[in-house]
Amino acid sequence: MKNAVYLQSGGPTAVINSSFYGVIKAYQENQGIDVLYGSRFGLQGLIEDNLIEINKEKDYSSLTKIPGAILGSARLRLKDEFDPLLDQILEVVKKHDIHYIYCNGGNDSMDTGDKLTKFFKRVNYPCTVVGICKTIDNDLCENDFSPGFASAVNYIVKSTMEIALDLKAYKKGRVTIVETMGRDAGWLAASSSLANRYNLGPDLIYVPECAFKKEEFLEDIKRIYQEKGKVFIVVSEALKDENGEYLFADTNNLDSFGHIQLGSISMKLCDLVKKELGINTRYIEYNLMQRCASHIASQNDITWAYSCGYNAVKFSLENKVGVVSIKKKEEVTYQLVPFEKVANHVRHMPRNYMNEIGNFVSQKGEEYFKTFIDDSFKIDIPEEFR
Amino acid sequence: MKNAVYLQSGGPTAVINSSFYGVIKAYQENQGIDVLYGSRFGLQGLIEDNLIEINKEKDYSSLTKIPGAILGSARLRLKDEFDPLLDQILEVVKKHDIHYIYCNGGNDSMDTGDKLTKFFKRVNYPCTVVGICKTIDNDLCENDFSPGFASAVNYIVKSTMEIALDLKAYKKGRVTIVETMGRDAGWLAASSSLANRYNLGPDLIYVPECAFKKEEFLEDIKRIYQEKGKVFIVVSEALKDENGEYLFADTNNLDSFGHIQLGSISMKLCDLVKKELGINTRYIEYNLMQRCASHIASQNDITWAYSCGYNAVKFSLENKVGVVSIKKKEEVTYQLVPFEKVANHVRHMPRNYMNEIGNFVSQKGEEYFKTFIDDSFKIDIPEEFR
Repeated sequence: MKNAVYLQSGGPTAVINSSFYGVIKAYQENQGIDVLYGSRFGLQGLIEDNLIEINKEKDYSSLTKIPGAILGSARLRLKDEFDPLLDQILEVVKKHDIHYIYCNGGNDSMDTGDKLTKFFKRVNYPCTVVGICKTIDNDLCENDFSPGFASAVNYIVKSTMEIALDLKAYKKGRVTIVETMGRDAGWLAASSSLANRYNLGPDLIYVPECAFKKEEFLEDIKRIYQEKGKVFIVVSEALKDENGEYLFADTNNLDSFGHIQLGSISMKLCDLVKKELGINTRYIEYNLMQRCASHIASQNDITWAYSCGYNAVKFSLENKVGVVSIKKKEEVTYQLVPFEKVANHVRHMPRNYMNEIGNFVSQKGEEYFKTFIDDSFKIDIPEEFR
Repeated sequence: MKNAVYLQSGGPTAVINSSFYGVIKAYQENQGIDVLYGSRFGLQGLIEDNLIEINKEKDYSSLTKIPGAILGSARLRLKDEFDPLLDQILEVVKKHDIHYIYCNGGNDSMDTGDKLTKFFKRVNYPCTVVGICKTIDNDLCENDFSPGFASAVNYIVKSTMEIALDLKAYKKGRVTIVETMGRDAGWLAASSSLANRYNLGPDLIYVPECAFKKEEFLEDIKRIYQEKGKVFIVVSEALKDENGEYLFADTNNLDSFGHIQLGSISMKLCDLVKKELGINTRYIEYNLMQRCASHIASQNDITWAYSCGYNAVKFSLENKVGVVSIKKKEEVTYQLVPFEKVANHVRHMPRNYMNEIGNFVSQKGEEYFKTFIDDSFKIDIPEEFR
């Protein structure tokens, strides 16, 4: 018997279950794996022997329409390749004759894949571990973009355009600050610039790759408010000042991976604007919706996520270890790269994707984001109402 | 010459422009109106002579896909039927030979329609005013539901289900509190109960029609958290205590209609839960998205909004004055009711649409909300992952 297990970890996306479906389809279509299991709650299921057997005949295609991590996720981190939890995992893996493990997650999960690989090598247990990327943040190294990102872009661009139309209702408006996720990378906030192709985008965009200067921020707002009577801004959840320190962050509040808990920056910036400029404000957080709005998921993203899962199984059957990464030249291809190249690194947005002063996306950045334009973005406003 | 003007006021919805399209279509298909104008920024355009001529031949159907108030809205209120602004309006109306006015808005706008009607009668100028309802809040009297509501329900139910799937990812979760709009009526928050038909709804729902009791709220949370390890709650933006006072409201902060500014109640309730129970929390506001997400607008809602606009013109050509209201028995019909019956009143959700303790929707309430079920809500989760 040669069995396999698939597990999900980190924050869910609108398409991580499409990667799961890709794994299932490859299992169903290929020889080489006798039983495929899904692990409940990531690594936890592998530790506690909480596995679900996947039916080799059944149609699981509805998974491509379901957001969240359907098997359950966990934010469990292995200390190192000597972590005692690994002995528990070995027991479960041996019990079920598991020789292939697919880890679907972000850079923390690729770190897990790396440690699992080193551990199995050390204890001389034959097990091929392949990583499958997912993150809406688009911050995984060795990937031209990450599965999950394009769907979040879809949600962000469409919502930004719809909000822009809503804000047009009033002659004299407020300063509206919209907050995206993205952690230390500005990809998500910057993607909102796609809305500007339809004249329905923000006036200003701030990302962590550009040092946030309070005075310039307030000057930008004052100038645009004087001109237009309202200002529409998109910001990343994690802005940093000139010393690289998080704006308004609570350094006492860390998650189980030791990351600072982010959020509510739009509200705090609104407070700043109200206090310093005396202008009415409104903050909007795209919150969980940006990562789970499968009703508006990108069809391309579903295909890419699916293909990452499918290729992970193919690579594993060739006994190749590593992370399936997405490369895009003319076509999208799926390549295997070493775990260490993805694990624990952050792929920041290049600084020149933003303009020099750092308050909007540059032409170079627009070039990049064009990949994610969707026909459904088009909006046909009769010209007398533009 | 007998001309007409259409104006939008109050907060935008995903389908107010569909009502505009209904007015345009009736204008294009019927005799009786020579020129139809759109007033820029509601009453403001009528005061300042800022009108757009609508083309009698052109296809304006794209308006049904555009959220926001495309002509611009205003939150201007006429003091009474002797307001000096009315003399300015009379001048503009006479100048353009306007004898039909269509006011598209909420209960404040129906008040405007009432004052306009009384004023024109007093000065003996022949002008027929017809009101067209719109509000996502569903709180307009004499309507079984309001144009705009069903699309907001679509957004709320789908997002609630998607968030529920996202929250399933972690075994041990937090207390998640989602906030809907709705002002003094709980319709929007209560509509989230539709998600429970798919087992993806909230555990608790709180609305302004049920007095909020802090102790019971905390007890509800404690009980469910002990049982499930997480709690999912939907609340209206305006909860009231047993004395009828707004929770956490800032009574110094009023809008131009004298209404208290609401918002951020989910954040404040999260603070309360953290402080009193020491449980991690997350607040989510559906914010402007719930009223402008035209990408997920209800097709029925578009039809209803369109028909209200269309019928407004038909009634006016019969010289009938009043508000087009929606009645639903087996079929949806459009009837004219007097302005005073809609103006300035609030249609609360009946108390028996909630259960006795007031923390969830009752069977009676579910009966009502069934009208708004959309086939697209269906989600097919393979049974081994439920």
